[in-house]
Amino acid sequence: MSAESRIRHPELRRKLMSAEDAAALIASGSTIGMSGFTGSGYPKSVPLALARRIEAEQAAGRPFRVRVWTGASTGPELDGALAKADGIEFRLPYNSDPIAREKINSGRMQYIDMHLSQVAPVAWQGFLGPLDTALIEVSGITEDGSLIPSTSVGNNKTWLDRAERVILEVNRWQSEALFGMHDIYYGTALPPDRVPIPLVRAGQRIGQPTFRCDPHKVVAVVETDSPDRNQPFAAPDAVAEAIAGHLLEFFRHEVTKGRLPASLLPLQSGVGNVTNAVLAGLMDAPFGNLTAYTEVIQDGMLDLLDSGKLALASATAFSLSPAAAERFNAEAHRFRDRLILRPQEISNHPELVRRLGCLAMNGLIEADIYGNVNSTHIMGSRIQNGIGGSGDFARNAYVSIFMTPSTAKGGAISAIVPQASHVDHIAQDVQVLVTEHGLADLRGLAPRQRARTIIDTCADPVFRPALADYLARAEAGSFGGHSPTLLDEALSWHQRFVETGTMRP
Amino acid sequence: MSAESRIRHPELRRKLMSAEDAAALIASGSTIGMSGFTGSGYPKSVPLALARRIEAEQAAGRPFRVRVWTGASTGPELDGALAKADGIEFRLPYNSDPIAREKINSGRMQYIDMHLSQVAPVAWQGFLGPLDTALIEVSGITEDGSLIPSTSVGNNKTWLDRAERVILEVNRWQSEALFGMHDIYYGTALPPDRVPIPLVRAGQRIGQPTFRCDPHKVVAVVETDSPDRNQPFAAPDAVAEAIAGHLLEFFRHEVTKGRLPASLLPLQSGVGNVTNAVLAGLMDAPFGNLTAYTEVIQDGMLDLLDSGKLALASATAFSLSPAAAERFNAEAHRFRDRLILRPQEISNHPELVRRLGCLAMNGLIEADIYGNVNSTHIMGSRIQNGIGGSGDFARNAYVSIFMTPSTAKGGAISAIVPQASHVDHIAQDVQVLVTEHGLADLRGLAPRQRARTIIDTCADPVFRPALADYLARAEAGSFGGHSPTLLDEALSWHQRFVETGTMRP
Ligand SMILES: CC(C)(COP(=O)(O)OP(=O)(O)OC[C@H]1O[C@@H](n2cnc3c(N)ncnc32)[C@H](O)[C@@H]1OP(=O)(O)O)[C@@H](O)C(=O)NCCC(=O)NCCS
Ligand SMILES: CC(C)(COP(=O)(O)OP(=O)(O)OC[C@H]1O[C@@H](n2cnc3c(N)ncnc32)[C@H](O)[C@@H]1OP(=O)(O)O)[C@@H](O)C(=O)NCCC(=O)NCCS
Repeated sequence: MSAESRIRHPELRRKLMSAEDAAALIASGSTIGMSGFTGSGYPKSVPLALARRIEAEQAAGRPFRVRVWTGASTGPELDGALAKADGIEFRLPYNSDPIAREKINSGRMQYIDMHLSQVAPVAWQGFLGPLDTALIEVSGITEDGSLIPSTSVGNNKTWLDRAERVILEVNRWQSEALFGMHDIYYGTALPPDRVPIPLVRAGQRIGQPTFRCDPHKVVAVVETDSPDRNQPFAAPDAVAEAIAGHLLEFFRHEVTKGRLPASLLPLQSGVGNVTNAVLAGLMDAPFGNLTAYTEVIQDGMLDLLDSGKLALASATAFSLSPAAAERFNAEAHRFRDRLILRPQEISNHPELVRRLGCLAMNGLIEADIYGNVNSTHIMGSRIQNGIGGSGDFARNAYVSIFMTPSTAKGGAISAIVPQASHVDHIAQDVQVLVTEHGLADLRGLAPRQRARTIIDTCADPVFRPALADYLARAEAGSFGGHSPTLLDEALSWHQRFVETGTMRP
Repeated sequence: MSAESRIRHPELRRKLMSAEDAAALIASGSTIGMSGFTGSGYPKSVPLALARRIEAEQAAGRPFRVRVWTGASTGPELDGALAKADGIEFRLPYNSDPIAREKINSGRMQYIDMHLSQVAPVAWQGFLGPLDTALIEVSGITEDGSLIPSTSVGNNKTWLDRAERVILEVNRWQSEALFGMHDIYYGTALPPDRVPIPLVRAGQRIGQPTFRCDPHKVVAVVETDSPDRNQPFAAPDAVAEAIAGHLLEFFRHEVTKGRLPASLLPLQSGVGNVTNAVLAGLMDAPFGNLTAYTEVIQDGMLDLLDSGKLALASATAFSLSPAAAERFNAEAHRFRDRLILRPQEISNHPELVRRLGCLAMNGLIEADIYGNVNSTHIMGSRIQNGIGGSGDFARNAYVSIFMTPSTAKGGAISAIVPQASHVDHIAQDVQVLVTEHGLADLRGLAPRQRARTIIDTCADPVFRPALADYLARAEAGSFGGHSPTLLDEALSWHQRFVETGTMRP
């Protein structure tokens, strides 16, 4: 199919222009709703042109900064380039770009770290102000001007509906077989007009395959041919494999006890090494007819689909390695009927996560002995990425599981600490905690019992005695005894790390 | 109506017995699902008899303890008496009884502090073990053996369905006009069988007025004639009135901006002094046709119903002063059609709170400068009550509001601290913070902006300079700069209070 045939709407074809010309339509101070989720489906050309423009303006002594809303993380051509140009004044709702991270942590960029399910509704609530421009990557435009989504859906529906004007990037690199894979639900509203979301199975389609978009709002269409920021895939290491092993054993145990069906319940999994090990482990585990209701489709899910172990997966975006992306592009037709990409307000909706009963599996930075989890702030202050969808899933999951290596920075840091230096997930929302040393099933345990179980099961043996000693002294000397705490020691491990580079005494 | 006519089912009438005989049916070590929510609708006679039995057994050297599940807090005849007898080994999901609180904080009672919406589903999940006995107060039994609920619904439906055997207390003190006021929804299930809950308006009825109960499971019926633990009502003080004033001004502002309808959105309010002041303030505020979708019906709501300002209220329980309870009992027919009591899994359901767009108004113990809220643990360790439904509402609300006097203990304690000593509600779930000094609208603000706003608006002027100084030094010296933190000072205010009895330097 020729490049031109990806833009089948004549009026929109007439709006074809260069990325530079499109970027020139964006004013300083304006708010841009960008596509993009976990490094897929983000605009790749106009943000780069905008970054060049910002650099030129700033070099000429004219301040130029924009406000950026996205689905989640994007790629170096967007967050990286704009942050490098110091062009982002305000950013929501999730970031994993290292340059943007530095700007945020140095106070140069205001960053609102949000529950991903809440971004679209909040954008409609109004207090964030108007959305000037939607800048959205699509994989094609149909005859009637409908937009065929790309490799992520994110908040695109909302940005397109809410923005005053629209700039489209049509990316020829994306597979044409994406058409038909998406399920765009148009039934959301603000209260008092909200109604039940009619989804009762992970694989159900409740919407349409394309975005609506008023062609009159479209001010520019730009053609691109660029791959997503697909991260190379690191083969699971021994620690990740040990974590996966404990978790699969837990699932087996729950099935044996009759507390989970043999096909488990819809899986939600964060990204990363450990998750990939879990997905790899599922290839050989005695579960079949699995489903996923999750944020992103990872390499391991393609393998599971191929093997027939995974019946289908619902998500809002892909997050693949370059090799898996190529494979997907080459064989998209084979996967299409068993993959569904939805708006993130649906993929992460508390109503649906609760109804489906997801098994939530997420990573963390640190957990404390009571099972409060820090997913975002290193040493309580330095943001790593953001809470993302972990709060949407953890609070509403059937079983909320957090997984982590027991140490970080080569063993200098214990991932299990006396008190979390920042809390994203309260103990109530953390039912199972897994490290390479073991799995702590915290369900039905009171805080002191949780503490003993976490120390004995999850903590690195090097740090266990100090944790047990802290707990014992806290039990004896705490102000209150429900969750014993020594206030002058609770954060001392972090302080020691900051001062000496290690938490070890 | 005679006492006997409250038990219209002949077979169940034959099971009438004394509280002592009923208590004798309960074995040590067994798990009892009790009715009761915020001091209403709890069994009042059998728990007292059980406490006497436990005391006698223990005096004879025979250990006797039980596991107690409830809806939320109960009354002195239940939690108080059993805790005094040291008869509760395990307790969930919420407690406000002072004796039980001491047992929990001294490590004598295992306490699981749970999101109230999750208690019923978790009881079905199975990991908490079997439920031996349901001990439920009802206001009557119909000819066909259906049970007419009392002044709280709580988890009674689930306890009745899940327990191996049932003991009923039929309380003649409760108004017979309660019949028809309840809405017991029987459509819940465990995944994968969950379906949408078909409720789209606060006032909608989706269930039936009575509980089902297999008469063969009923082992005892006990008659009682005792009032609920209705707390005397403290007239709002100046601090509460100032808080209410700021909040009502905020609502007016949001209506003016077009961000809230003139009838607002369904109100959820915690209990206490401040909430009562808000409800009183609504009597004179320019809002009409209000609705409430909340946990408990308080005095102020009866007044609002009476005035016509409040169209209807949905809750899971009453929480009235003795005067208001008498008034309700005398005039229940007038209120009946505009009050609905539901199971707490429905009154607090995330799906419904989100769909309806509740305006959540809850109290707190302390908030930190970033807006993380501690609702449960004094000085990070001593449990006060529990998280209750505040997490169900705060995360899913249209606007999540927390209200508190700016100081506690006569000004010795600042309710705004550098770092919360325990976190129940993460900053993402705290959009508005109100003290007598002002209202901080935190929506759309990044952490450092939140901190400045909270310090300048909400903190007591006595503590403001020290908070501002902390923030400034943290911005300069923190490990990371997104949420600046001085790890060795973050909890030092609490430590100072523990050591010296005041947070003041
Ligand atoms: C928590 C999270 C960062 C872990 O991700 P990961 O890829 O498994 O983690 P890594 O081990 O690579 O750690 C990332 C960084 O944090 C550091 N880190 C991890 N644990 C740490 C700890 N306890 N203390 C200090 N630093 C720590 C690592 O050293 C690494 O830093 P580096 O890049 O400078 O080496 C990630 O899961 C996340 O962002 N979670 C929040 C969002 C979420 O859960 N989304 C899921 C979808 S709903
Ligand atoms: C947080 C909560 C305890 C506040 O309740 P309240 O009645 O407004 O609070 P009070 O001011 O009476 O405080 C209760 C106690 O805590 C103490 N307290 C309050 N703030 C404190 C602080 N910052 N530090 C130390 N103690 C504090 C008070 O002094 C009082 O103690 P006392 O009884 O020994 O005098 C209450 O709202 C709660 O339990 N919330 C959690 C559950 C919930 O939100 N449910 C809402 C329904 S969904």
